[in-house]
Amino acid sequence: MSQSRLQGIFTPNLVPYTASGDINEPELRRYVDWLIDRGVHGLYPNGSTGEFTRFTVEERRRIVAIIADQVKGRVPILAGAAEANVKETLAACEYYASLGIRAVAIVAPFYYKLSPASVYAYFKEIGDNTPIDVTLYNIPMFASPIDVPTIQRLSEECERIVAIKDSSGEIPHMIRMIQAVKPNRPDFAFLTGWDAALMPMLLVGCDGGTNASSGVVPELTRKLYDLTTTYQIDEARKVQYDLIRLFDTMIYSAEFPEGFRAAVSLRGFSMGQGRQPLSSEQRTDLTALSRELQCMLSAHGFTDQPVGGCPVGNDSAAPNTAEVTAIVQQVVAELHRRGLM
Amino acid sequence: MSQSRLQGIFTPNLVPYTASGDINEPELRRYVDWLIDRGVHGLYPNGSTGEFTRFTVEERRRIVAIIADQVKGRVPILAGAAEANVKETLAACEYYASLGIRAVAIVAPFYYKLSPASVYAYFKEIGDNTPIDVTLYNIPMFASPIDVPTIQRLSEECERIVAIKDSSGEIPHMIRMIQAVKPNRPDFAFLTGWDAALMPMLLVGCDGGTNASSGVVPELTRKLYDLTTTYQIDEARKVQYDLIRLFDTMIYSAEFPEGFRAAVSLRGFSMGQGRQPLSSEQRTDLTALSRELQCMLSAHGFTDQPVGGCPVGNDSAAPNTAEVTAIVQQVVAELHRRGLM
Amino acid sequence: MSQSRLQGIFTPNLVPYTASGDINEPELRRYVDWLIDRGVHGLYPNGSTGEFTRFTVEERRRIVAIIADQVKGRVPILAGAAEANVKETLAACEYYASLGIRAVAIVAPFYYKLSPASVYAYFKEIGDNTPIDVTLYNIPMFASPIDVPTIQRLSEECERIVAIKDSSGEIPHMIRMIQAVKPNRPDFAFLTGWDAALMPMLLVGCDGGTNASSGVVPELTRKLYDLTTTYQIDEARKVQYDLIRLFDTMIYSAEFPEGFRAAVSLRGFSMGQGRQPLSSEQRTDLTALSRELQCMLSAHGFTDQPVGGCPVGNDSAAPNTAEVTAIVQQVVAELHRRGLM
Amino acid sequence: MSQSRLQGIFTPNLVPYTASGDINEPELRRYVDWLIDRGVHGLYPNGSTGEFTRFTVEERRRIVAIIADQVKGRVPILAGAAEANVKETLAACEYYASLGIRAVAIVAPFYYKLSPASVYAYFKEIGDNTPIDVTLYNIPMFASPIDVPTIQRLSEECERIVAIKDSSGEIPHMIRMIQAVKPNRPDFAFLTGWDAALMPMLLVGCDGGTNASSGVVPELTRKLYDLTTTYQIDEARKVQYDLIRLFDTMIYSAEFPEGFRAAVSLRGFSMGQGRQPLSSEQRTDLTALSRELQCMLSAHGFTDQPVGGCPVGNDSAAPNTAEVTAIVQQVVAELHRRGLM
Repeated sequence: MSQSRLQGIFTPNLVPYTASGDINEPELRRYVDWLIDRGVHGLYPNGSTGEFTRFTVEERRRIVAIIADQVKGRVPILAGAAEANVKETLAACEYYASLGIRAVAIVAPFYYKLSPASVYAYFKEIGDNTPIDVTLYNIPMFASPIDVPTIQRLSEECERIVAIKDSSGEIPHMIRMIQAVKPNRPDFAFLTGWDAALMPMLLVGCDGGTNASSGVVPELTRKLYDLTTTYQIDEARKVQYDLIRLFDTMIYSAEFPEGFRAAVSLRGFSMGQGRQPLSSEQRTDLTALSRELQCMLSAHGFTDQPVGGCPVGNDSAAPNTAEVTAIVQQVVAELHRRGLM
Repeated sequence: MSQSRLQGIFTPNLVPYTASGDINEPELRRYVDWLIDRGVHGLYPNGSTGEFTRFTVEERRRIVAIIADQVKGRVPILAGAAEANVKETLAACEYYASLGIRAVAIVAPFYYKLSPASVYAYFKEIGDNTPIDVTLYNIPMFASPIDVPTIQRLSEECERIVAIKDSSGEIPHMIRMIQAVKPNRPDFAFLTGWDAALMPMLLVGCDGGTNASSGVVPELTRKLYDLTTTYQIDEARKVQYDLIRLFDTMIYSAEFPEGFRAAVSLRGFSMGQGRQPLSSEQRTDLTALSRELQCMLSAHGFTDQPVGGCPVGNDSAAPNTAEVTAIVQQVVAELHRRGLM
Repeated sequence: MSQSRLQGIFTPNLVPYTASGDINEPELRRYVDWLIDRGVHGLYPNGSTGEFTRFTVEERRRIVAIIADQVKGRVPILAGAAEANVKETLAACEYYASLGIRAVAIVAPFYYKLSPASVYAYFKEIGDNTPIDVTLYNIPMFASPIDVPTIQRLSEECERIVAIKDSSGEIPHMIRMIQAVKPNRPDFAFLTGWDAALMPMLLVGCDGGTNASSGVVPELTRKLYDLTTTYQIDEARKVQYDLIRLFDTMIYSAEFPEGFRAAVSLRGFSMGQGRQPLSSEQRTDLTALSRELQCMLSAHGFTDQPVGGCPVGNDSAAPNTAEVTAIVQQVVAELHRRGLM
Repeated sequence: MSQSRLQGIFTPNLVPYTASGDINEPELRRYVDWLIDRGVHGLYPNGSTGEFTRFTVEERRRIVAIIADQVKGRVPILAGAAEANVKETLAACEYYASLGIRAVAIVAPFYYKLSPASVYAYFKEIGDNTPIDVTLYNIPMFASPIDVPTIQRLSEECERIVAIKDSSGEIPHMIRMIQAVKPNRPDFAFLTGWDAALMPMLLVGCDGGTNASSGVVPELTRKLYDLTTTYQIDEARKVQYDLIRLFDTMIYSAEFPEGFRAAVSLRGFSMGQGRQPLSSEQRTDLTALSRELQCMLSAHGFTDQPVGGCPVGNDSAAPNTAEVTAIVQQVVAELHRRGLM
């Protein structure tokens, strides 16, 4: 209880795979050190970026155990602990508590879209029985939403619920949560999971973020955090603009989190092949994306340029929308002419 | 009040334009006769298919006046009467009543998405003051939804509200409406605006439809109605399958209702250019679509084949999805290679 | 391969719990017998109704093993087999094949919303390696959608993929799937998971359904199937109307599948308390719902009336919407007066 | 062309009605003066707040003419000019140009949901023919969305398109627009229509806003603008928090824009009854809302407290969510007990 508030950039770190598709422990350990060396404030295994749903119960536990062993207390760990039901989730909480991690993060029930009353009842039972601090995890695009009255009620009834990580990316929603919770729980922490709005989120009152980009360019995400929290607005804005371009490319050009995995590979890690199968076309696309990301990273000095170099000009890293549109339109017209569409 | 229930296929007819973009009155009159000759049970000007939002107040009135004059009582007319506010809408109702049309259809308020209470208040004021029978028009993809309790309440409080035209295409919703309204209002009529579900809608209890396809292939839509209402299920199913293929092509291959306009042109009417501007690529696409529609219509004997003929085989009219997919994937890969995406 | 097409009503059966929250094996066995005695054509454990996500891997296997042992070949079993990733899912397929079940059903990947290319790649890898027939499971409200081109491609490339169970409830979508798949795969089966549209789905070409209501009133669901498939349209429509009222009450009045669990209890089974915690208000609501369901079931002769009797009148089982609305409005006004809203 | 960039707070002003429902010209003139006196940078008639869809063509023109006449050049005017089709919209542009207003704002086509290609074609034809500067108006919750490639293309092809007003409230979308347009059009202006995110929007690069709250508390909205643009972050945040509470109350507690109309009445203007009919329950609710708003405004010194006073405490103006929830749950339970739900 005497622990300090969660604050700063927690990296929702990816898990490298071996050739046979298992957890690549040595590479995971090396990656953890690399992240800490580059200034992230904490680590967040078993999040959405960490593909928690694609591992077995035992694998999820092993991932956290490896990371806890490697970190050795240098930075706090926030571990995703959602399992099939409350009983299994509490068992995971017990285990993570025994590893000495700082707190767990528990996503709202998913698959079924539950009502606020059920989301409340679920977290209330966990909050009343957990042996470790709990961070609520709101990600309405994937799981049942946690609305403001539910957060407020849980924060007032369960002192072991100490934070919320919100990946909705909605600034007004963040403000409403802070307004509802902070007066009675000044210790409560608010983390944003949406890199594209990190700077404005911090400016309206967030304590930090769990940002996937910090797993790729920890230097840049940390710099954005430092500039923003010291109100160096003009400089922060420039970094936010750079970050959004990189983030958009990683998140929209391939199935999540493959774009992030490709980018981490470029930083020198052997990530292996993901567990979600890809079609041959998707694999081709990923190769092209990797080249584009390499150009973006080299523009910031994080990698060399790819063999063959990168496009020149200040727009080089951005999609040339008009050209793409024109080509697509020609193709569609051609398909019509051939009677294929 | 002694009038019979709305029943059968009402054509939501398009409006032909002159070269200068005005209403082409002679062609509209010729089109009306053609539709009646091919067996539609009624006409429905100023609907969504009829592009009511793209005309001025005066033009909307003129369209109904022309049609009423041409029909001369041969079939009932259902006229779209929604205007900027209740006062203007009631003025339109007065005018349409003076023309002797059967009933008006009034879409729920659009642009603003209103609550059920407001949708109720809007129709209640109209229902209490209209001089002509009113059909509620529920089209949730474009306008505020009219929910089941609202329909039930209005049907019980306003006897001049005599029908609902529902374009949601949801069968369970239709059943719920009928269950809620019919016990107290056995005279109330239920019309579906979604051609892709016409047969099953009639089988669960609908009285008819306002179906855009009946403006293109009135023979086919009427045949589907007749087969279904006489429970010739196997034959009806075949026609429904044919109709859905044609409907999908017209509705998804171009901006609505351009696909329908292209198809009516193929039936021999000079439709002119639509009022919503098209990009040059869209115009190219429309030419290709027109060719494809001609093949589909010729397969039913409604037109000749286009010059150059049509693809052979029982799948000829359908998009060859795998081939399209393959081409698109090649293009995307090429765009990546060129660094354009 | 020589097995016949999946056809008829497959019950997505619930799992009864013991007082300690475990699988109640004797009650599950008794329930299975009861369902078969009342005419369901098959059983479907580990579906959404069966709360598959709330069990551990081992529990999911045990449920199927118990049912297979109890059924002893009397009816075919379709077993939900989705696990954390392709490797785990294929391991489940192996196990279910060893139990001699008819086929597995595999829901599209959930939590992450995958693109059609990824959904294809996922099922392609499964379809190429499964030792048992596979039914695709499309439930877009909970999982990544399986679109028509993807279904078509998989049906053409993987002969072990033999059916689709679709819970979207959209008739036009069902027709489009049948049009795309049937020409090349006449053996392919189409099942609907949406009870509110069972009759029209069968009439447009479905082979059967996996309908939660058949776990509550198997007699009624079976009757609807028989009347519809023999084209006794007017009688079928009446049963569909009854079924939709019951279905809506069970699905919309409580968190899914609690309404169904309450109703099965009324048929004489000890269902225990569900694994998703409920707030005290939700438990109160469930008691009231149970009473309402008892009235609906007694109206069909399936149960006695509750102590104290049921409301009289042909609307007795339906919510009195106007009255509810009036009460809610009074409350809202009162809240405003007290300055609470 | 030599005119300066649109910048600052433009009030999307409401229109007061007379007892007979017409435009209340004297009150509108008085309101305009009051707004300018309190520091708004410009006026924006015929926006969504200004209920443009509920007026006739002639009324929309008269509103702008009255305001232009009253303003007499003291502040720039941005006039909503969207009409039924391109020809009518251009006619409105001609008229507004003749009144000497600064620019028009044109919402994307609504009712029909158009594709990006059609949205482009629509604005391209307007942009090529307008005699007056044009602001694009993106409000995806009500009209066809204007996506980033479309904005970029239009900004590059049409120099008379000089700004975008975006009411999506999405910060990342705003950043993407600025990134896409600014390099080639440094003169282009970006305005946000979402008061709940005004401070962060300005910090990421917006030039100003068209904010409905500035029609109610122009002093506060202007203060937020000034604090934010001078980087007084902590003070700005406090005002943004106050503003969001007031904004939420006005926008979510009544049908838009009735909450704003009620609040402007409290500032001393006779707003009359709105054109959208209200049910008797809605009228009761509006009375209660008015009292709540009076308490909020009095807390800022903008009005006296209502007769009877306001609740005490720092949460006084906020809904007491837990209490509301408890009452609603009791009611629902009661409805069930009475068999009404």
